[in-house]
Amino acid sequence: MQPRQLTILGVGLLGGSIGLAMRSAAPRCRIIGWGHRLQSLQLARQMGAIDQAETDLAAAVARSDMVILCTPIGTFETILRQIASGLSRGCLVTDVGSTKRSIVRWADSILDKKVNFVASHPIAGSDRRGVEFARADLFKNHLCIVTPTSTTRATALKAIGSFWKMLGMRVAQLSADEHDRLLADVSHLPHLLAAALVAMQDEPALRLCGQGFLDATRIAGGDGGLWRDILLDNADNLRGGMTRFQAEVSRVMNMLESGEPDALRNWLSAAAQRRQILVDQKLREMRAD
Amino acid sequence: MQPRQLTILGVGLLGGSIGLAMRSAAPRCRIIGWGHRLQSLQLARQMGAIDQAETDLAAAVARSDMVILCTPIGTFETILRQIASGLSRGCLVTDVGSTKRSIVRWADSILDKKVNFVASHPIAGSDRRGVEFARADLFKNHLCIVTPTSTTRATALKAIGSFWKMLGMRVAQLSADEHDRLLADVSHLPHLLAAALVAMQDEPALRLCGQGFLDATRIAGGDGGLWRDILLDNADNLRGGMTRFQAEVSRVMNMLESGEPDALRNWLSAAAQRRQILVDQKLREMRAD
Repeated sequence: MQPRQLTILGVGLLGGSIGLAMRSAAPRCRIIGWGHRLQSLQLARQMGAIDQAETDLAAAVARSDMVILCTPIGTFETILRQIASGLSRGCLVTDVGSTKRSIVRWADSILDKKVNFVASHPIAGSDRRGVEFARADLFKNHLCIVTPTSTTRATALKAIGSFWKMLGMRVAQLSADEHDRLLADVSHLPHLLAAALVAMQDEPALRLCGQGFLDATRIAGGDGGLWRDILLDNADNLRGGMTRFQAEVSRVMNMLESGEPDALRNWLSAAAQRRQILVDQKLREMRAD
Repeated sequence: MQPRQLTILGVGLLGGSIGLAMRSAAPRCRIIGWGHRLQSLQLARQMGAIDQAETDLAAAVARSDMVILCTPIGTFETILRQIASGLSRGCLVTDVGSTKRSIVRWADSILDKKVNFVASHPIAGSDRRGVEFARADLFKNHLCIVTPTSTTRATALKAIGSFWKMLGMRVAQLSADEHDRLLADVSHLPHLLAAALVAMQDEPALRLCGQGFLDATRIAGGDGGLWRDILLDNADNLRGGMTRFQAEVSRVMNMLESGEPDALRNWLSAAAQRRQILVDQKLREMRAD
């Protein structure tokens, strides 16, 4: 799908990177960026991520055939209410949020049937914030999950898939429920654990940390407000993941208590091996082009 | 301290890197490498990490004025017993193990007073194993902790400090007790948590993982046998660290349960900020040269 006019709501790292990627993928597309901070919008325009800056939501979405929400998920409901009446017939609306059940529910209840909403989660990013870190290749060879519902039109689903593929992504479909459950385990829980690992430390221990600790806690460097929204929105799945994580920890602590050196080594080796298989697989995917 | 003849017991990543670093820091020092695998020893000699390869322990340490144990900590007691009678008078003996209470206790009971033992923990490394990954600059600007006891001679302590400084390290002193307690929190606990985070995952979730998950679990890629030894040797401190970690997790899960958005954001932001301060500090230390 090649939109003629694309509106990016929230021109930060992700929104700005979509603009830059579109610049080369679809050079004739007009890109409108909306945001609160004039300074970010001006920078986005200077970088070539957007053609036009708007601080008025209705003006930003008017006449666009595609609109992408790139703001924190805590703002989604309000923004959908504010843009609903101003969207063009047939407009393709999507988002880049890290949870999917809420946005799907909101879109279903708020948006008119004359527009097409399909939720997206491009799994690419950085712990850095702001359009100054935007990159045209941020999405390249990464995975984008789209979460259609029973009311999603086949043409809209196809259009959203080809949009992300145009930006270099692999596209997979999941239900919003599956998405939120799986991402809780592999993204939201690791974030919470990394933050807890930082928070529990005493200063004298922190001073001795090596690169391993810094790597293990890198994800905890993300924006607090953004991640607060994600964790609250996915709290039920997080609880489930945490319960299974705690069970795994209990298992290994029991091996330590009872001094089972072979079981402990096997458990550690299995984790190391499993991660290596994953790394090899990711490398193959990233070299796919 | 510039040894005339240095014996490296175990020529893997750390042992090999010590050899390579010594090559430029003290080119007149003769370096003897001991190990089980002839192939590794030959590679170490080809790389210039050692001058002479030995598979016999007594021959390896004979006439050396410095000996460094670079094997897994589970082998330390046996090796100390095997080399004790063959060490030269005044020989400086140290190690690179990740725990310090056991080696200090073993050295105290096994080694003759005619040799000088001071335990070391150079906090540098990699999740990769083997001399093929050895690098002359592996230790540069990193921290080395030495753990003297009440019987450590001042001259020996000074000699071991200047040895690690010669390899480019910053040197700090802690008691073996303090070392093991602090490293449990900032290194051994993170390793165990990262391994549990991998082990708990279902395959469908793993397939969706992003770079954040790979970074968070990188430390879990370490060798299972090596880490088994470390975790078992430091099990009591690990338990203490785990209890405090679990308390931190309970705190944040309560914020999620009771829906305290402000408390949750503040907690996440504080962790992000604390980590950033740490990263900035580490960058300054690494740029110190």
